[in-house]
Amino acid sequence: MQPITETFYKYIEALQNKITMAFEAIDGCATFDEDIWEREEGGGGRTRILLNGNVFEKGGVNISKVHGALPKAMQSYFGVENVDFFACGLSLVMHPKNPMVPTVHANWRYFEMYNKDGSIIDQWFGGGMDLTPYYLFDDDVKYFHMQCKSACDRHNKNFYKKYKKDCDSYFYNSHRNEARGVGGLFFDYCKGNDSMTIEQWYDFVKDVADNFLNSYVPIVNKRKNITYSATERQWQEIRRGRYVEFNLIHDKGTLFGLKTNGRIESILMSLPPQVQWSYGYKPAPNSKEEELIKVLKKPKNWI
Amino acid sequence: MQPITETFYKYIEALQNKITMAFEAIDGCATFDEDIWEREEGGGGRTRILLNGNVFEKGGVNISKVHGALPKAMQSYFGVENVDFFACGLSLVMHPKNPMVPTVHANWRYFEMYNKDGSIIDQWFGGGMDLTPYYLFDDDVKYFHMQCKSACDRHNKNFYKKYKKDCDSYFYNSHRNEARGVGGLFFDYCKGNDSMTIEQWYDFVKDVADNFLNSYVPIVNKRKNITYSATERQWQEIRRGRYVEFNLIHDKGTLFGLKTNGRIESILMSLPPQVQWSYGYKPAPNSKEEELIKVLKKPKNWI
Repeated sequence: MQPITETFYKYIEALQNKITMAFEAIDGCATFDEDIWEREEGGGGRTRILLNGNVFEKGGVNISKVHGALPKAMQSYFGVENVDFFACGLSLVMHPKNPMVPTVHANWRYFEMYNKDGSIIDQWFGGGMDLTPYYLFDDDVKYFHMQCKSACDRHNKNFYKKYKKDCDSYFYNSHRNEARGVGGLFFDYCKGNDSMTIEQWYDFVKDVADNFLNSYVPIVNKRKNITYSATERQWQEIRRGRYVEFNLIHDKGTLFGLKTNGRIESILMSLPPQVQWSYGYKPAPNSKEEELIKVLKKPKNWI
Repeated sequence: MQPITETFYKYIEALQNKITMAFEAIDGCATFDEDIWEREEGGGGRTRILLNGNVFEKGGVNISKVHGALPKAMQSYFGVENVDFFACGLSLVMHPKNPMVPTVHANWRYFEMYNKDGSIIDQWFGGGMDLTPYYLFDDDVKYFHMQCKSACDRHNKNFYKKYKKDCDSYFYNSHRNEARGVGGLFFDYCKGNDSMTIEQWYDFVKDVADNFLNSYVPIVNKRKNITYSATERQWQEIRRGRYVEFNLIHDKGTLFGLKTNGRIESILMSLPPQVQWSYGYKPAPNSKEEELIKVLKKPKNWI
């Protein structure tokens, strides 16, 4: 049997191909540009970026596989010293042009930590996927959450409830007292134990990831041709500012990347293409914009 | 004699009036809107914001005076427990519309810490001012630094060199290996000692602050009417992205504000109005844009 490090990387390589091809087909205009990069300390990645499309204004679907001595900043985070690590994963963020289409983020990753003699100290999966709408279509959010739930239910009937809640907690702009978006799934430190082996976790992660396109693409197709006003576009750009705030202030993945000498352009591909910061911008009472804020202030159960 | 807490606050109240009037006069179109706010735990502030002007696209000149129990996050930062504090200051950021005019930031602040019986544990001044150009005009940067140096020299011949260097170190986007801008002055923990009493520090800070308009306004007037292209505007918006990255990832003032329940809209007024994030954007060889990057990669001595 091949080690998970190899099979999982092969899996996300194929998944990156599948996802980028699907997004190019939807866009119908722009294609992904590819950058292959190497990490000085070990490993590298394949970054794929789409810019100025018909449907997607900016998006990235990246894979990477990095290994070597665990960087100092991560040593203190994990409470270990002088160990080696292996990490690989796929990260994606798609920022649609049309404010009626939600931004999507997903990530699936695998991590191993070793003693200097090569013996494994620990290994786990992590990841999830979540939606950030600018205008709320209840049907879309319900559909996305139903897809999340189906994938979870096939593995454990408690997973959806738990990982939905963890997603709401994680993607939270505490300085604004509001969620980044309407959530989805977030899981981390999924380690083999009595009730679930690491191979079973692998199956779970694969199931969620395999179901990603089916969770998001129908929403894009349903909303991508809705006409919108300059004011709605402005609202989207202001809300994108909140996305930037979350990623730069709170997101552990981003901050770790920046502090451990990661590849900056690959990490910050998550930032939206055009963003505005106004001052004290408040949506009109009973507007669609206010409706969104209400939901973000108090995450809902969608199912 | 009145305590510094009172005299300094009166000083920055008057300074805010002087600065906002001067900027309104230059702009000739937009005026500052004022928000008076109170802090639940003690104190408050006067936020003044200008939007969509002729010359300034967005700017804020804010004063605040806050006091009470030192928030937890600041306790651990200062290595103290269970003490009271008083802090007041003026913070300003002006984002000009024309990419040929640099963004300016300045801050002057005073801090006191007390035991619960009211006895002073410590007191200090901090602050500075710095310039962030999008296109480099050597004369402008030299002029700004000369003004910084004159104000410093009147108090101590070593100050300019030291605080210029501290400014370059502080306003540094370490994840990009480049400075935020071309610097100016940055000083902190200016405490009374054998060679300089706290009153003398007060005089120094006042001298720098009194000289602010004279350091920046001539640059604005010289460049505000230069015509610029859409490409130059785009470059400005991309560089503004770096400004956002610094403020949200590295700036201690911003992060403290966000973590100590500060007034979000006043803190984040520093963020530029319209911003872009591209992917792997590189200026053309030997272009003006590349010239800027070279200077930011290796801060220069301007005098």
